[in-house]
Amino acid sequence: MARQILSEMGTEIMIPVCAVIGIAFSLLQWILVSFVKLSPDKSSKGSSKEPLIEEEEGGTDHSVIMKCADIQNAISQGATSFLYTEYQYVGVFMVAFAILIFLFLGSVEGFSTKSQPCSYDTSRMCKPALATAVFSTISFLLGAVTSVVSGFLGMRIATYANARTTLEARKGVGKAFVVAFRSGAVMGFLLAANGLLVLYAAINLFKVYYGDDWQGLFESITGYGLGGSSMALFGRVGGGIYTKAADVGADLVGKVERNIPEDDPRNPAVIADNVGDNVGDIAGMGSDLFGSYAESSCAALVVASISSFGMSHDFTAMCYPLLISSMGILVCLITTLFATDFFEIRNVKEIEPALKNQLIISTVLMTFGIAIISWIALPTTFTIFSFGQQKEVQNWQLFLCVCVGLLAGLLIGFVTEYYTSNAYIPVQDVADACRTGAATNVIFGLALGYKSAIVPIFAIAFSIFVSFNFAAMYGIAVAALGMLSTIATGLAIDAYGPISDNAGGIAEMAGMSHRIRERTDALDAAGNTTAAIGKGFAIGSAALVSLALFGAFVSRAEIEVVDVLTPKVFIGLLVGAMLPYWFSAMTMKSVGSAALKMVEEVRRQFNTIPGLMEGTTKPDYANCVKISTDASIKEMIPPGALVMLTPLIVGIFFGVETLSGVLAGALVSGVQIAISASNTGGAWDNAKKYIEAGVSEHARSLGPKGSDAHKAAVIGDTVGDPLKDTSGPSLNILIKLMAVESLVFAPFFARHGGLLFKIF
Amino acid sequence: MARQILSEMGTEIMIPVCAVIGIAFSLLQWILVSFVKLSPDKSSKGSSKEPLIEEEEGGTDHSVIMKCADIQNAISQGATSFLYTEYQYVGVFMVAFAILIFLFLGSVEGFSTKSQPCSYDTSRMCKPALATAVFSTISFLLGAVTSVVSGFLGMRIATYANARTTLEARKGVGKAFVVAFRSGAVMGFLLAANGLLVLYAAINLFKVYYGDDWQGLFESITGYGLGGSSMALFGRVGGGIYTKAADVGADLVGKVERNIPEDDPRNPAVIADNVGDNVGDIAGMGSDLFGSYAESSCAALVVASISSFGMSHDFTAMCYPLLISSMGILVCLITTLFATDFFEIRNVKEIEPALKNQLIISTVLMTFGIAIISWIALPTTFTIFSFGQQKEVQNWQLFLCVCVGLLAGLLIGFVTEYYTSNAYIPVQDVADACRTGAATNVIFGLALGYKSAIVPIFAIAFSIFVSFNFAAMYGIAVAALGMLSTIATGLAIDAYGPISDNAGGIAEMAGMSHRIRERTDALDAAGNTTAAIGKGFAIGSAALVSLALFGAFVSRAEIEVVDVLTPKVFIGLLVGAMLPYWFSAMTMKSVGSAALKMVEEVRRQFNTIPGLMEGTTKPDYANCVKISTDASIKEMIPPGALVMLTPLIVGIFFGVETLSGVLAGALVSGVQIAISASNTGGAWDNAKKYIEAGVSEHARSLGPKGSDAHKAAVIGDTVGDPLKDTSGPSLNILIKLMAVESLVFAPFFARHGGLLFKIF
Repeated sequence: MARQILSEMGTEIMIPVCAVIGIAFSLLQWILVSFVKLSPDKSSKGSSKEPLIEEEEGGTDHSVIMKCADIQNAISQGATSFLYTEYQYVGVFMVAFAILIFLFLGSVEGFSTKSQPCSYDTSRMCKPALATAVFSTISFLLGAVTSVVSGFLGMRIATYANARTTLEARKGVGKAFVVAFRSGAVMGFLLAANGLLVLYAAINLFKVYYGDDWQGLFESITGYGLGGSSMALFGRVGGGIYTKAADVGADLVGKVERNIPEDDPRNPAVIADNVGDNVGDIAGMGSDLFGSYAESSCAALVVASISSFGMSHDFTAMCYPLLISSMGILVCLITTLFATDFFEIRNVKEIEPALKNQLIISTVLMTFGIAIISWIALPTTFTIFSFGQQKEVQNWQLFLCVCVGLLAGLLIGFVTEYYTSNAYIPVQDVADACRTGAATNVIFGLALGYKSAIVPIFAIAFSIFVSFNFAAMYGIAVAALGMLSTIATGLAIDAYGPISDNAGGIAEMAGMSHRIRERTDALDAAGNTTAAIGKGFAIGSAALVSLALFGAFVSRAEIEVVDVLTPKVFIGLLVGAMLPYWFSAMTMKSVGSAALKMVEEVRRQFNTIPGLMEGTTKPDYANCVKISTDASIKEMIPPGALVMLTPLIVGIFFGVETLSGVLAGALVSGVQIAISASNTGGAWDNAKKYIEAGVSEHARSLGPKGSDAHKAAVIGDTVGDPLKDTSGPSLNILIKLMAVESLVFAPFFARHGGLLFKIF
Repeated sequence: MARQILSEMGTEIMIPVCAVIGIAFSLLQWILVSFVKLSPDKSSKGSSKEPLIEEEEGGTDHSVIMKCADIQNAISQGATSFLYTEYQYVGVFMVAFAILIFLFLGSVEGFSTKSQPCSYDTSRMCKPALATAVFSTISFLLGAVTSVVSGFLGMRIATYANARTTLEARKGVGKAFVVAFRSGAVMGFLLAANGLLVLYAAINLFKVYYGDDWQGLFESITGYGLGGSSMALFGRVGGGIYTKAADVGADLVGKVERNIPEDDPRNPAVIADNVGDNVGDIAGMGSDLFGSYAESSCAALVVASISSFGMSHDFTAMCYPLLISSMGILVCLITTLFATDFFEIRNVKEIEPALKNQLIISTVLMTFGIAIISWIALPTTFTIFSFGQQKEVQNWQLFLCVCVGLLAGLLIGFVTEYYTSNAYIPVQDVADACRTGAATNVIFGLALGYKSAIVPIFAIAFSIFVSFNFAAMYGIAVAALGMLSTIATGLAIDAYGPISDNAGGIAEMAGMSHRIRERTDALDAAGNTTAAIGKGFAIGSAALVSLALFGAFVSRAEIEVVDVLTPKVFIGLLVGAMLPYWFSAMTMKSVGSAALKMVEEVRRQFNTIPGLMEGTTKPDYANCVKISTDASIKEMIPPGALVMLTPLIVGIFFGVETLSGVLAGALVSGVQIAISASNTGGAWDNAKKYIEAGVSEHARSLGPKGSDAHKAAVIGDTVGDPLKDTSGPSLNILIKLMAVESLVFAPFFARHGGLLFKIF
């Protein structure tokens, strides 16, 4: 077992340096975005060398810029106030849950402060269970706070950038693209670097107490993943309900009943709709991906802590997951330059390829990055412990594990694109089905979603098989990490979409020329497809992460085999497979009910406020914002409780075997629904856009806007909204969160769980 | 181990006697139905004592009766010709598959004709693998033929009864109900009794060769289940596509575009639509439930063959599953009399309670029936072998296993009713969502379907847990049998629905008074809910049957543990959970495409045939029938191939562990989609009916027919059609069929399977 090239000191330096580089790069991008001025005087100076040749109509005049600034302000205030309210509620929950963690884990050894013999080597002494309780609680809170910060900062930059993108769109599509993309990058890099830095700092601080007891150390660190993911759950669900209630409500009355365009300032729900993009698609998604990242790192670390790295206290090899993430930051940094500096977007057709190239470039570069890290950070051979068996692993095998995850992610991305972009047959078929009305549109869309799960599932299955065979559960954990290693770029692309969407909204509300709207629409359309790709990544990585967490849970709970043929496991499997349906039913119904309320309010305003349709009076935006806020805060609790309580209830009353079944069932069933729901929604959205854009003979035969086929397409799009932006993406969190929660509580369940079976 | 009361001779007499009683009762019902004459002269004589006081308008005149006879003839011819075509294709497949079974199973011991040492006791000699090959092939063909006969006879009686129900509706709703219900009972009893008799005869014939080798005997008998279920798959899928293509096509043009009522004779697709009810809902469902019945019996028998019954050659105890079914026939016979003779339906409100009472009465009586059989047919204690372990079972424990299945079935039935009947809140909520358009209707409907899976899944999980703990896999097999023990009544209720539906269609086409149509509509509406209940039973029993078959497969393939934590099993689980989605995508898309073709043809006829809308010329019904026939024959092949080939491919290339994973995954995921799909569809259908009927203040505020809310409801109903009648119910068959197929081929896979893993 030859020692690796990178020394412990090197590791201790490289990780924080990369994180700091990421943060610095992110701030640099923010500064670059801030050069676009939102106050009239400076704006004319700032862009003095580049006269706005193209847009005389939409003009450089004060009033437009002031309008943009006003609207931005309204959106930003709405989003900030929603997030504050949300964080207050979630904060209370987090504190309560932290106490629960402390009590449950502390009770494992009866709150004893005495050291215990280590489980892997009874001749050595390890830290008491009480320490695990304390440090798990701390890392849980750390994870939650980091998640909050990630989501909140993302929202801030997004609401900072949206109006600036609109203004830059006057100069050309390329300029607007750069502003939107840079802002996305701010979020991507901040989140990736922050997550890494906090995790790294926590490990080093905890090490002061834990010393040699790495198993205890890294078991406590799993709380970080739980904290991140719990926050993500509420962020995704709350934000998802908020955004879709506003969106569906605004569309149903505005577009369908009143026949006014999307984002028309006369629509009372328009501000709520734009706020929704920022709290749902930006803050919610940011928390979500941070959660995935934190969980996959924790899963890899906790599995590694009982491998030969942990035993021989090889800190560099132990930090392999963190080093991969560090390398990811550097790779994504270079990748970003391709979009913002090396090439320039000259027309709308170049946008989608530019975004896709980001994925390809980052994947290719990262392959080399992983190779380097695997070469310098890992010993040539090492031993992994897998459910009581030992497994010899070579460093190139681990390299392949990470790569298979990375490539599977790319494949899932491309398949998602195929099924959701209207450049390909599937979405065009769905659009064609609108010819015979909304019913066939819905039937074809649902079928498309179901079908789109096939290849991703095979890709995930293949990754699992390869990485498990190479390095057991550790292989799966690093494969998940591989899929998430280019998270900064992925997030930049993801965040770019809602920012462009907002920019379009602001253009419309500020009454700017339709040519500007066309440009922002083109930015947004490309963002739609890439958002679907991002969701594909999120789901694929969630599946791998959950499996790795599941494996770690089983190890920690000291279960030897999870046999489907025992009724305890099988009923768990069956009920677990049902949970995603229960959860989806709740979230979809919540969106539906909130949308109904929104519709009533919007209708009421149109009917009772004189001059609203004529544009002479302003609608009461605040009331709609309040409806969305109240609904999402109220409605996020039941699905949140379902996910957070299920592992506790099952673990306490039915024990760890049934819980294993539940986790496996929820995983294999949830992945399918998540993929289908996201892709169905994306396809409907783009089928509608296909008819609206009318770029081909076929598309024109279905259009134009307002035709029967288009109306049918709008219905499909509306049905797809909660599927693709609320229930679908929240399901990732459901499967990951239940797994990480089980992992954190594993010692408690193993000691005190299974009450029902003990009684009978 | 005290001997039981019922002697072997008693068993040998009781089973065929009960079967014959069932067949005789069925024929008696047929004769009673035939008293309603379809030729004018005799009709006036037959009903001379009961003048048609109520219906002077619709009249007794020749022309109406002749019209009814004509329409009935057209429907009957269409259905017969479709089934002939379908059976031709399926026949070819069946012969090819029979050859495959023979070759694969024969090759296990290299087609050796030498006896082999028994696997359970190597000191004894058992029949060669070649014998298993031959007898499995024979029983496969027997099962397929019995299934064909069941479906075909059901269709014959249904097309015989539909016009008779219409004519009786002139005399009153009670009379019409009795005709429709009697006809359903013909099908129910014929099918239950036939299935039992053929199985019983096969066992006795096979015993002549097998003698003491009961394990070989009952392993060969599993082919009966495979044959029944393979046929059912094609029947369900083909029939499902047929009926929904015609239904969706007819509705989209007729109701939505042309604003003519359902079943209007001017609609060219109307005959195809009515034919569809008979080939899909009657023949397809008949084959399906026969398959479930055959499989659950086979699962119970094959598990019992390696229990102490099999070892000690206790024929009576061995035949416990058949005795339960025999008792079921007697119980259902008495139950039927409650509907047809003991009480009389006087007004439309009494219909639904009468049907629900059927379920309750049969369940209560059957509980006593099971108690009697368990008391007389079982030894007080016996031994079950469960994956290498022995389990002592008391006869009362087995009684409880059957009961828990029976009661879980009833519970599932009631939950299904709650979620699909418009007498309760859930469907009313869905109807209310139509207020804001089709999109919210679809969102609420999908959420309802997801939610409706919760209780049934808990009921199934509870049954599994209880029955497994009492009697391992045998417990689960008899629980499934318990759920299916009242199959004759269940089928009678199920078949009653489409017959009433057809009766309404005939009334409309024959131009009879709207008062008659109202009566048949009332019959039909009650049938809608009970059809959903029937599907609930079918799904619940399918889950239990599949698990029992899965257990038998694992035993036969000599797998000791199916560990989720091995990658072989986990990837199977993941891919298995995806299969129901793949399958649903195929079937839904097939319905969609076929419906599009139908829409084009119907539009073409309306546009090109002069005088069609005015009713002066007849449409070309035959062309629409041809479109449905061609589409369903062509489109049933890919989903059929997916289901039939998956176990073979996985078994041969990946081996029995991965196949176990696939079966478990498909089971836990398929059950959820099947329940959601059926209930969503049922709810949409009844939400539409709720608005149409306008029985409450709330319903009237949404209606009347043609209002925006009603149009939205029609869209939901159309989306639900393929969900509830094609993909949903076919999924039962998917999970059962893959399990029984794996069981039949288990020795082959265990010997020659897993090629890929052997190579690498």
